[in-house]
Amino acid sequence: MPQPPDDERRALSAFGTRVRELRRELGLSQEDLADRANLHRTYVGSIERGERNVALLNIHRLARALGVTARDLL
Amino acid sequence: MPQPPDDERRALSAFGTRVRELRRELGLSQEDLADRANLHRTYVGSIERGERNVALLNIHRLARALGVTARDLL
Repeated sequence: MPQPPDDERRALSAFGTRVRELRRELGLSQEDLADRANLHRTYVGSIERGERNVALLNIHRLARALGVTARDLL
Repeated sequence: MPQPPDDERRALSAFGTRVRELRRELGLSQEDLADRANLHRTYVGSIERGERNVALLNIHRLARALGVTARDLL
């Protein structure tokens, strides 16, 4: 993925931070969350580091796995 | 894009409907919105029809172009 402009990098990083916060609140490991969301563990790690331009369906999967709405993740 | 399960199709369709509602409220054509969001007009059309698994950065671009937050689109 080419280096996105600052505001885009901030958007990806904010999303990743939000996922990490909610995951930790639930006491889940990245692996636990990946299993719940039917995603690969390394993908969850890269999302949390703000390295992924996550698509809508995975946003919904993560939200469901974290017990929140997709809106809560943005 | 392979045919997503029902709940996923609903998520894409709900997003598209939301974009269309907000666009029409502003009296914008799909072309106007595409120009504002720096996206292709046909891509905006397919998003509104619920055919696209839109990624985070385009969600933010559409939100900015519609004068709302990304949260408002979900």
